[in-house]
Amino acid sequence: MELAPSPLARPFPDIPAIDGVTLRIARARYKDWDRCDLTLVEVAEGTGVAGVFTRNVCCSSEVELGRQQVKSGKARALVVNAGNSNAFTGYRGREAVEQIMGQVASGLGCAPSEVFVSSTGVIGVPLPKDKARAGIAAVLDAQPCSWEDGANTIATTDTFPKGAHAAAMIGDVRAEVGGIVKGSGMIAPDMATMLGYIFTDAAVAPAFLQECLSRANAGTFNAITVDSDTSTSDTVLLFATGKAGNSALQNWDSTGADAFYAAVEEVCRELAQLVVRDGEGAQKFITVQVSGAVSDESAHRVALAIANSPLVKTAIAGEDANWGRVVMAVGKAGEPADRDRLSIGFGGHWAAREGQPVSDYDEAPVAEHLKGSEISVEVDLGLGEGSATVWTCDLTHGYISINADYRS
Amino acid sequence: MELAPSPLARPFPDIPAIDGVTLRIARARYKDWDRCDLTLVEVAEGTGVAGVFTRNVCCSSEVELGRQQVKSGKARALVVNAGNSNAFTGYRGREAVEQIMGQVASGLGCAPSEVFVSSTGVIGVPLPKDKARAGIAAVLDAQPCSWEDGANTIATTDTFPKGAHAAAMIGDVRAEVGGIVKGSGMIAPDMATMLGYIFTDAAVAPAFLQECLSRANAGTFNAITVDSDTSTSDTVLLFATGKAGNSALQNWDSTGADAFYAAVEEVCRELAQLVVRDGEGAQKFITVQVSGAVSDESAHRVALAIANSPLVKTAIAGEDANWGRVVMAVGKAGEPADRDRLSIGFGGHWAAREGQPVSDYDEAPVAEHLKGSEISVEVDLGLGEGSATVWTCDLTHGYISINADYRS
Repeated sequence: MELAPSPLARPFPDIPAIDGVTLRIARARYKDWDRCDLTLVEVAEGTGVAGVFTRNVCCSSEVELGRQQVKSGKARALVVNAGNSNAFTGYRGREAVEQIMGQVASGLGCAPSEVFVSSTGVIGVPLPKDKARAGIAAVLDAQPCSWEDGANTIATTDTFPKGAHAAAMIGDVRAEVGGIVKGSGMIAPDMATMLGYIFTDAAVAPAFLQECLSRANAGTFNAITVDSDTSTSDTVLLFATGKAGNSALQNWDSTGADAFYAAVEEVCRELAQLVVRDGEGAQKFITVQVSGAVSDESAHRVALAIANSPLVKTAIAGEDANWGRVVMAVGKAGEPADRDRLSIGFGGHWAAREGQPVSDYDEAPVAEHLKGSEISVEVDLGLGEGSATVWTCDLTHGYISINADYRS
Repeated sequence: MELAPSPLARPFPDIPAIDGVTLRIARARYKDWDRCDLTLVEVAEGTGVAGVFTRNVCCSSEVELGRQQVKSGKARALVVNAGNSNAFTGYRGREAVEQIMGQVASGLGCAPSEVFVSSTGVIGVPLPKDKARAGIAAVLDAQPCSWEDGANTIATTDTFPKGAHAAAMIGDVRAEVGGIVKGSGMIAPDMATMLGYIFTDAAVAPAFLQECLSRANAGTFNAITVDSDTSTSDTVLLFATGKAGNSALQNWDSTGADAFYAAVEEVCRELAQLVVRDGEGAQKFITVQVSGAVSDESAHRVALAIANSPLVKTAIAGEDANWGRVVMAVGKAGEPADRDRLSIGFGGHWAAREGQPVSDYDEAPVAEHLKGSEISVEVDLGLGEGSATVWTCDLTHGYISINADYRS
């Protein structure tokens, strides 16, 4: 975290201790830096796990293994290496992951398949096994640490630590849902250079836990984009220790299932938005709302075309209500649209209605809105009932500076 | 053309007069500027025409009308308005185009449907009819001008005028093919904020003329990208006056058809590459070559994913051989790829082979290559015989400056 915090940063929230979850951190020195870069989260015996992973076909060994491991629904530990993504490193990369799994399993007395590993950082350099071995030995002996320490330790190019919390009443049992996330560039559906870990003390059957995570993911982590690039390592895992004492949620009909899902979705949304707020070079947080589409899926694709358009993002960076660029982005999305029914607004003020500039258009309130740091772009396609919301940030000189200089 | 010429600019070529083609320019003052911004190209009676147009569904009236007009295969004139794209302007925009068509038809003694109109510039402001009327009156009376004058007059944010020329022997008749193009931002398949006009004195049946243009377009104008954004106005027209005196080309079996096609393709490729060379903020011209794909179409999509990746483009701007970002872009393309068969190189030097960094990788020649202004990225997917080439430019601070400031 060498850069100044993003102007869109939020303070780290109060996240209570979650029964059955213990965080520890250590220095593996994967890069030439003097900070903790290795995180171990131990979860209680009997913890269930669900996961969603990048769709990038050139994914890392960590992701390949994680996809397999999550099928069992059982977890005892999570390890996160920061500074080296270990992606595109062939068998040597895989050996490093398997070494970590074995070492942690020995330390905690569990099966290697119950140890989930993530790595984030530069692509193409095998994770150094000696550093990993020493780091794991150190972290197994470390004292428990705070959520904020964990959030700082999983970070790479992030400029502030990111966490979120919500609670749910499951019958008369209060369950906590807390999570941390890292990510700022290479962010796009599906999944981004984003690692997110959410923990709850609720008891939830693994199949239903997966259903909750997949559903929440669609409208949160999969509805953010910074630069349209999708990383090779993206992972979100949801761990449920069951220590809260509720009778395990089995499906949507279980008492408290809706409340639990709402808490998971709230945490996912907050974590996803925090990643956009740390978008590389971001000066403005942009909410793109599309309505009037032929379906929700179509609205989602149109919203992403707008949110990924460099011309729209640079216009907003320049505080320019250039709705013509929004028209262009709608038109290129490949979805049903009719120029003569299209309406576009900023901050609740229509600039164009039904295919033409608003005749008595007053740009003053729109210009005022665009000077702020929380921008909203509204598009009504005028065709149907489909709607979607996507979050992104503006495209600035900061993005170029960070990405033309950041290096292996 | 207020900006300094692109460092990748090429001098305007010698394009000979083409029999049956007369260019004239005038000042319509569509914007508050003191330069010619209205171009009229008169073509001889009997001229055939073919066209390809943007697939952006929010296209301009000019494009809607042009798509219809080109079906007849007949043309007598082309009008290009610079400074106002007349897109998203509803019935008022359409009326302005129809007024121009009628006025030119009266002046030249032809049918309005034989007058093709293009407009380029800001979206959402109806083309002012009074300025258009005065401008057309002036241009009808103007003296013939050079190709370079025409290329300068159709330009907007371009930093240098763009033209290309080739010749073909059709039997024992020499035919000329010459063209001009404008475009620098909002460039992506399919078609870009790009207006291209190609003229030949060959005699070619309209259906075959269209076949030649469509085929050439696929590997040239549709193989360039600057920023992944697709404009509402893109158009390429090919006019054949028939004045060279060859017997009209009817199909691929006609004598000289291959030579004619080769000349058309050469002009299209040169014009397309010139647009990339004027990419907003471009400092480096990048050729992305993908081989070993399961099909040519698959290779094309992978090449575009690389060429459109902001992280790849900023890495090259920073002269960083960050092949990990190329891996990421391959993986997100949604096409068949196998991490462990993938090879990536720069300037003819492999950085990674079959899923792993090259063991004796010498970065020096790659670093030297990346310091130049003509960069090549090679990807071998190792799966099949499909290949494709795409051209793009790097993503720099210049792009942000131009697009965060340029305004309606």
